[in-house]
Amino acid sequence: MKLVALAGGVGAGKFLRGLVRAIPPSDVTVVVNTGDDIELHGLHISPDIDSVTYWLADVADRERGWGRAKETFTAMDKVRELGGQAWFGLGDQDLATHLVRTQWLAEGKPLSEITDRLRRAHEISTPLLPMSDDPVRTWMLEVDDEGMEHYQPFQMYWVGHGGRCHVKEIRFEGADDATPAPGVVEAIADADTILLCPSNPVVSIGPILSVPGIREAIPGRPVIGVSPIVAGAPLAGMADKLMPVAGLEVSAFGAASAYKDLATGFVIDERDEALATRIEGELGMRVAVTDTIMSDDAAAERVARAALELL
Amino acid sequence: MKLVALAGGVGAGKFLRGLVRAIPPSDVTVVVNTGDDIELHGLHISPDIDSVTYWLADVADRERGWGRAKETFTAMDKVRELGGQAWFGLGDQDLATHLVRTQWLAEGKPLSEITDRLRRAHEISTPLLPMSDDPVRTWMLEVDDEGMEHYQPFQMYWVGHGGRCHVKEIRFEGADDATPAPGVVEAIADADTILLCPSNPVVSIGPILSVPGIREAIPGRPVIGVSPIVAGAPLAGMADKLMPVAGLEVSAFGAASAYKDLATGFVIDERDEALATRIEGELGMRVAVTDTIMSDDAAAERVARAALELL
Repeated sequence: MKLVALAGGVGAGKFLRGLVRAIPPSDVTVVVNTGDDIELHGLHISPDIDSVTYWLADVADRERGWGRAKETFTAMDKVRELGGQAWFGLGDQDLATHLVRTQWLAEGKPLSEITDRLRRAHEISTPLLPMSDDPVRTWMLEVDDEGMEHYQPFQMYWVGHGGRCHVKEIRFEGADDATPAPGVVEAIADADTILLCPSNPVVSIGPILSVPGIREAIPGRPVIGVSPIVAGAPLAGMADKLMPVAGLEVSAFGAASAYKDLATGFVIDERDEALATRIEGELGMRVAVTDTIMSDDAAAERVARAALELL
Repeated sequence: MKLVALAGGVGAGKFLRGLVRAIPPSDVTVVVNTGDDIELHGLHISPDIDSVTYWLADVADRERGWGRAKETFTAMDKVRELGGQAWFGLGDQDLATHLVRTQWLAEGKPLSEITDRLRRAHEISTPLLPMSDDPVRTWMLEVDDEGMEHYQPFQMYWVGHGGRCHVKEIRFEGADDATPAPGVVEAIADADTILLCPSNPVVSIGPILSVPGIREAIPGRPVIGVSPIVAGAPLAGMADKLMPVAGLEVSAFGAASAYKDLATGFVIDERDEALATRIEGELGMRVAVTDTIMSDDAAAERVARAALELL
């Protein structure tokens, strides 16, 4: 069985660690969001690709929730001291990823080739693809306390300002002109099943599906989603703030409804069991119920198996 | 007394530490070579500006000869592991300098303003100016073992390939169209004396003098050089390889003759005392003789005082 998993950052990384315990790691191709990529200090940073890479390589920091384990922050401490932009945390080892990516981009290599090189350097046997080699950037139209509207890139909204601003609209700049990265449409066409990782449906999975050709390649086979919302709140991140912007209720039902007419099955947490009938009835999806808290790889495997059992 | 010092990297840094023991630090303005700046990993690296900054801030590594003291190399070790370009050593603290410089350049700030910000962050009271805010890059026309000619940027020639290639020609790309950084011509016009630090006359002081308007602003006051060549060899660097390319003999006399019609005085090492008469006779410069080995700040002060005593 061949699978394609659409992935955001940390939530996806945790889930994929469980998935590759349930199936052979090379049987799943991961297509990763690049909408929250950012250029900072001249470096091209791809937070979701890096999160998935670090999680699959088992070098992610499980407590901090981002970046690499056993990390030091010498460079960033000095950036702060020099009066530079230190709002986006970059560890010293993590910096190396951005340095080589940026150099390779400057040499003309596409992001997909670079992502694959970094995957191999981390000895990951699961193919990783950025959603696109073209720049797609998630911008937030925010309304501040004085009622003034202004656009911010996603990372500035979330990491820079802690998601405190009121978001009125979310745009995926460049998506209309982007094409799927080489291999994305082929992997989807070749897959028996598509998995939607427990990532933010609006700003993690949303940008992937916004690239023309990706969503269109999916129909005709099972699509199984996993809810990133448990008991009406996201386990991490800002889905509670952004789902309403997309007209979604902040619940496992809302998460499922983000994939209306796309997902054929959905995994929800046992705390949300009461929503199963509604998801089945109103959205026509098969529902699996399990404990979706991925506190370790074994727990993540349980969630992955619940998704696979919907097939 | 107001001074302007034209400076390359480490040799200049050592000399300047001595100079600011001999005169008030704010009485000298340092104009630094940017011809060997390099863009790597997307970062703008200004090796000579950084050397001078680190030496004046007393954070330079005195044994390694480049970079900062008490440095770690976590990021660069990882870059090597990931298959990236690790030939140009960048410490973790040092990286911060390049990160903030690159970010500020991306925000539209000129190099001169950035250099000044970094100077202030390092609590240096000596004004530092890049020779130009415009890109001037030193390129080497090399001839390889097969007789093939190819151009390399200076850092690739020197750091990348250890100065092993035969250099046929040296070009300062962009110099013709460059203008001196704001304050450079004014500082020279305002100075009683110009000092030429013991830097490579060809690839350190040469690029500074190649910026139209800088050399022209100098005449009319004492110009004192310090030989970077002792007993027919450079104390550091590659002057022995590059002086012949510029038609200069590799000696204190050759170093002095690089500043013919410019320098009015020249400091040479006591080991080269026999050359004093020739420099005075053929080049018309006053000569001071001292031990020019700058093994510590006190030794550097001795060299600086020898230069000042030529006034």
